[in-house]
Amino acid sequence: MKIRVIIPSITKEFEAMGLEQYSLGARSDTEISVTLLDKGPASIESRYDETIAVPDIVGKIVEAERDGMDAVIVDCMAEPGVEAAREMVSIPVIGPAAPAMHVASMLGHRFSVITVLDRAIPRFERHGPKTGLSRQMASLRAVNIPVLEMGDTERLVKALIEQSAMAVREDGAHVIVFGCTGMAGLAEEVKKGLEEQGISDVPVIDPALLAVKVAEALVDIGLSHSKRTYPNPPEKEIVGY
Amino acid sequence: MKIRVIIPSITKEFEAMGLEQYSLGARSDTEISVTLLDKGPASIESRYDETIAVPDIVGKIVEAERDGMDAVIVDCMAEPGVEAAREMVSIPVIGPAAPAMHVASMLGHRFSVITVLDRAIPRFERHGPKTGLSRQMASLRAVNIPVLEMGDTERLVKALIEQSAMAVREDGAHVIVFGCTGMAGLAEEVKKGLEEQGISDVPVIDPALLAVKVAEALVDIGLSHSKRTYPNPPEKEIVGY
Amino acid sequence: MKIRVIIPSITKEFEAMGLEQYSLGARSDTEISVTLLDKGPASIESRYDETIAVPDIVGKIVEAERDGMDAVIVDCMAEPGVEAAREMVSIPVIGPAAPAMHVASMLGHRFSVITVLDRAIPRFERHGPKTGLSRQMASLRAVNIPVLEMGDTERLVKALIEQSAMAVREDGAHVIVFGCTGMAGLAEEVKKGLEEQGISDVPVIDPALLAVKVAEALVDIGLSHSKRTYPNPPEKEIVGY
Amino acid sequence: MKIRVIIPSITKEFEAMGLEQYSLGARSDTEISVTLLDKGPASIESRYDETIAVPDIVGKIVEAERDGMDAVIVDCMAEPGVEAAREMVSIPVIGPAAPAMHVASMLGHRFSVITVLDRAIPRFERHGPKTGLSRQMASLRAVNIPVLEMGDTERLVKALIEQSAMAVREDGAHVIVFGCTGMAGLAEEVKKGLEEQGISDVPVIDPALLAVKVAEALVDIGLSHSKRTYPNPPEKEIVGY
Amino acid sequence: MKIRVIIPSITKEFEAMGLEQYSLGARSDTEISVTLLDKGPASIESRYDETIAVPDIVGKIVEAERDGMDAVIVDCMAEPGVEAAREMVSIPVIGPAAPAMHVASMLGHRFSVITVLDRAIPRFERHGPKTGLSRQMASLRAVNIPVLEMGDTERLVKALIEQSAMAVREDGAHVIVFGCTGMAGLAEEVKKGLEEQGISDVPVIDPALLAVKVAEALVDIGLSHSKRTYPNPPEKEIVGY
Amino acid sequence: MKIRVIIPSITKEFEAMGLEQYSLGARSDTEISVTLLDKGPASIESRYDETIAVPDIVGKIVEAERDGMDAVIVDCMAEPGVEAAREMVSIPVIGPAAPAMHVASMLGHRFSVITVLDRAIPRFERHGPKTGLSRQMASLRAVNIPVLEMGDTERLVKALIEQSAMAVREDGAHVIVFGCTGMAGLAEEVKKGLEEQGISDVPVIDPALLAVKVAEALVDIGLSHSKRTYPNPPEKEIVGY
Repeated sequence: MKIRVIIPSITKEFEAMGLEQYSLGARSDTEISVTLLDKGPASIESRYDETIAVPDIVGKIVEAERDGMDAVIVDCMAEPGVEAAREMVSIPVIGPAAPAMHVASMLGHRFSVITVLDRAIPRFERHGPKTGLSRQMASLRAVNIPVLEMGDTERLVKALIEQSAMAVREDGAHVIVFGCTGMAGLAEEVKKGLEEQGISDVPVIDPALLAVKVAEALVDIGLSHSKRTYPNPPEKEIVGY
Repeated sequence: MKIRVIIPSITKEFEAMGLEQYSLGARSDTEISVTLLDKGPASIESRYDETIAVPDIVGKIVEAERDGMDAVIVDCMAEPGVEAAREMVSIPVIGPAAPAMHVASMLGHRFSVITVLDRAIPRFERHGPKTGLSRQMASLRAVNIPVLEMGDTERLVKALIEQSAMAVREDGAHVIVFGCTGMAGLAEEVKKGLEEQGISDVPVIDPALLAVKVAEALVDIGLSHSKRTYPNPPEKEIVGY
Repeated sequence: MKIRVIIPSITKEFEAMGLEQYSLGARSDTEISVTLLDKGPASIESRYDETIAVPDIVGKIVEAERDGMDAVIVDCMAEPGVEAAREMVSIPVIGPAAPAMHVASMLGHRFSVITVLDRAIPRFERHGPKTGLSRQMASLRAVNIPVLEMGDTERLVKALIEQSAMAVREDGAHVIVFGCTGMAGLAEEVKKGLEEQGISDVPVIDPALLAVKVAEALVDIGLSHSKRTYPNPPEKEIVGY
Repeated sequence: MKIRVIIPSITKEFEAMGLEQYSLGARSDTEISVTLLDKGPASIESRYDETIAVPDIVGKIVEAERDGMDAVIVDCMAEPGVEAAREMVSIPVIGPAAPAMHVASMLGHRFSVITVLDRAIPRFERHGPKTGLSRQMASLRAVNIPVLEMGDTERLVKALIEQSAMAVREDGAHVIVFGCTGMAGLAEEVKKGLEEQGISDVPVIDPALLAVKVAEALVDIGLSHSKRTYPNPPEKEIVGY
Repeated sequence: MKIRVIIPSITKEFEAMGLEQYSLGARSDTEISVTLLDKGPASIESRYDETIAVPDIVGKIVEAERDGMDAVIVDCMAEPGVEAAREMVSIPVIGPAAPAMHVASMLGHRFSVITVLDRAIPRFERHGPKTGLSRQMASLRAVNIPVLEMGDTERLVKALIEQSAMAVREDGAHVIVFGCTGMAGLAEEVKKGLEEQGISDVPVIDPALLAVKVAEALVDIGLSHSKRTYPNPPEKEIVGY
Repeated sequence: MKIRVIIPSITKEFEAMGLEQYSLGARSDTEISVTLLDKGPASIESRYDETIAVPDIVGKIVEAERDGMDAVIVDCMAEPGVEAAREMVSIPVIGPAAPAMHVASMLGHRFSVITVLDRAIPRFERHGPKTGLSRQMASLRAVNIPVLEMGDTERLVKALIEQSAMAVREDGAHVIVFGCTGMAGLAEEVKKGLEEQGISDVPVIDPALLAVKVAEALVDIGLSHSKRTYPNPPEKEIVGY
């Protein structure tokens, strides 16, 4: 099975990181490939960043289908371009946020999302009414480390443990969901950190890992998005793309 | 007062139409100007169309603020780029859909939206959870005439009356909202048509007209969007825009 | 344009205050007139107060239409008599609460209302399910100064700034809405006070001002409430009114 | 136990009818008394009717408490004055609508209300968001017989059976609730009529009967409304009442 | 009237306690009888406990109907077996939770439930979406005393007062509901304790007492659950029961 | 990987069928085993059937964990015993309904469930408020063929196509979900049947197949239910199990 990960960024370093992160959870017979954007922002931290990323994201997804991919993942919790791309292709196109929130809802009473910056929280809350899972969200919290500084893993893990523990103790979270795919691969360490604080009964969901598993599952049983919800766009004149 | 209308299209004919439609409801001391896109689609009928329209929409809104405009209206019920642009400017940026739905909720028990194509309905329903007004929507209906063929006004009015009457009689609508700004200026004729069918008690809301009034009102009393919800994007490297 | 403001009170001093407050936001061609009640309470602070105010409120609104008014505003956030009066007249009848909450929802993620007394809060929460905007309410707070002592503007402004800052910092409010029309004209001072505390990104909505703008907008484009929602009452015997 | 029924009407004939209807379900040790209004409308069919009824309704409830009553019922599904009166007295004050809808929710999956006139339906839907039971409402239907003509019992029963059967078959109702206390005493006949049509598994709730049982139950165990929700109104000048 | 209380436990001491508690609120002409389980757990504190209690609970309810009972109450706030038993019998079968929550909603703005253990809270929250009353719940709190140690009444009352006061002051509760029928008979003491803390305006609901009143009311007016919601199970082979 | 399927039935024929159905979607390295109940009903068609099935279901799940299974699936859309069993074990325990509904929500705008009997519909609707996905349900429909007669595959497929087409055309479904695991393996035929009717854009979800994929995915990345939501039951005396 061939899965293409679209990284909605022009930052070269993200390419190898993305390949590593998404390969972690993949089955041995799953081949992960990664594509950066040619045009767009260095990272997605605002609605404006999404706006200038989406045309090329959709372009790369169309390309992925042409390349014979079985499924596509857009590597960003804001899921930019996922819905538009579904109009253009037939293969499954998923972001990491919806699968993580749906699975969190299946595993426990309430979940909290630990995202990067406070300023992302209103954008993040859009997922609630969109998915119907508002009531299942115990809280949204942020580690408040900018995306481009998240390389300091120790600092990031410490902040994730701290916010996760507060989500459990103060907000009533029973499941933790990472709010950024830049946190991929850290679930085990965060789980261990929580256990050291006496919180040993809370699953920690790594949306990047999970996205791969959901993509594999959909391909295995031949499911994709409904073209009744995402019909092909009518033909028309277009300038600049 | 100066209001700039952004028409999210590259179709030249829409420029004069837009100027005429948005001038209809403007006060004598309100100056309307209209801008088309340089890059983007001929019309917005899909999520993909939105995707390739938004970068230039936001660019044109930034330009409008630089030009000294007091407010901006994006001429499309899908409101593409409105949220992203609010991060980039301080002047009010509004689309026609939210004001129309909020005012409809104030004027009667339930409203129905009569949009262009059935395929737009799932996209349109996004406004429900986003605004909180799902319960106030009696139904969404479509005239099923493509945007680029809506020039046949007689056919359009007839279809609007027919669908509006069905919304009132079958779906329990107490207020009618046009679902496309291409229907601007037709409210009186539709109202008359409904009266001929014995439905004389139902307001018909023209979102383009109303958007101008809401823009004027916000400017008059110095209100704009919350920069806490729409903070300026962090500075970063961007390629292609 | 002629707009009549009904002050649901028998307190003479409110007449000049009301005229001043509602004239603040009016256009130069809008003529505001103000009417007190002949029968009713000194102020509206309870459901009982509403009960004994509503018959005369509706009477004054019927009179306003007969006097050739273009629209009526009921000067109270509880909006007593607005729905009943809409059955009796065709001109727009609005209260200040619904427009303020709907506009707040359009301008930011969540809003908080700062009202007068804690005891008004349950009454105020009725607006949530009624308008559909419960999810948009970050919190309801009170300055806890009785209506009849609100003349001490300095104390009132200080309390408004204090509660507004707490609403932003603790409750996640992105927009502030005044919860009493007796606070009209203070938005600028409250905004300044918030800025001094480092909160410079939050709009402050003055419902009295906004009500005038919404009334003007509705009259401009010929919209009023749906008589399908508010049909004329059937003729019948009535004693005492 | 002494229960006072307030009939929100000046129509003399309703006095004996009310006494009979509310005595039907009362225990042998419950003493029902009935009071008409001195001022107000002949019947409640509009918001305006409610408006001019409420001052005297509240007055009669205050009087009932002074007369040593144990509980008060306001004989109208719109429950006019119930909330205001709760501020003025400590004894239970209930309307028939909320108990009927809450009990219907306990007895089956979804309920339908069969009310008098189509024009009452928007007013009736207010009970949904107010009580939280919107999802439990399968539908609202009307027999479309004016209140003052409901004396023709045969016609009324026939229409009730017809609408109830449609509610069950078309709207998915599992419980029927009468939407007017003028239908009191007809539940058995309607149930029989439904059985003749093969619908033998649907409870029919008579809100007047049930209101008496709920009043008795509350008095028995010493429960009344929360004065934290319904605090006594502050003292103030009042003219005309 | 004959009401059978099913105690979902094999613990002998609960029999006399149950009889006493449920007799407290019963009318003089109501005869309460109590049945323990033959098979099942010592108490209900988990979903697993419910699972192994339900077959015998339903068996005892079928027996109660055969014994000529008029109604059945299942003595547990989790209401195990209530819905299944309604398929097997025609007489009213009620648990104490739904009536308490519905009546609390009728008496005040928001209610809090004070239950036994924190671990029961997620199970308890199921009642919110099931009844539609989620918005009416101010909070769920626990005294954190195990069911089998609740015999220490003094400790229990003290903890109930403490948690109830916090529910009122911090969570905005206007009505208190006991979250376990093992708290039956303590409402007066808790009310007194709250008054000593200056909280004199909050009703305290004892679900066991209330369940008896609701059962009596339903039997009085001939209402039971809808067999359309709870049809008789189809005949089939069963092993072991 | 070893997955145990618990068939909540005593009917011997279901064993081979279950093994076949659940093996369809399993990976080559996944070993499916199947267990029937020793005690319980021939099939699950009512709440009563669930009641007498759950003790043995939970017992079989505890046994599965002891046998070294990696995950357990309960083969019934009502998911009997899933929540109770999660208290007793640490391995993932899933039913087929929640995964199917969550995935349907991810793939399209609205889904319809085609279940077996009309009488199951109210039981099925419980999944809506429980999962938060009520708004995503376009409709619930039934083929009205009893579980024990579903062996006639031709009749079943025909009825599934018919109801699915109606769900799409009349109820606005964009995704179809089978409402019984006895329909496993028929998705392709139903999809083909829909295409013959011109409905070629609607995914058809087979919950049995999907449950296996979700179990595999959870095991792959080491996720299971939250023990904070499902803590181990306290030790206590139990009779009969």
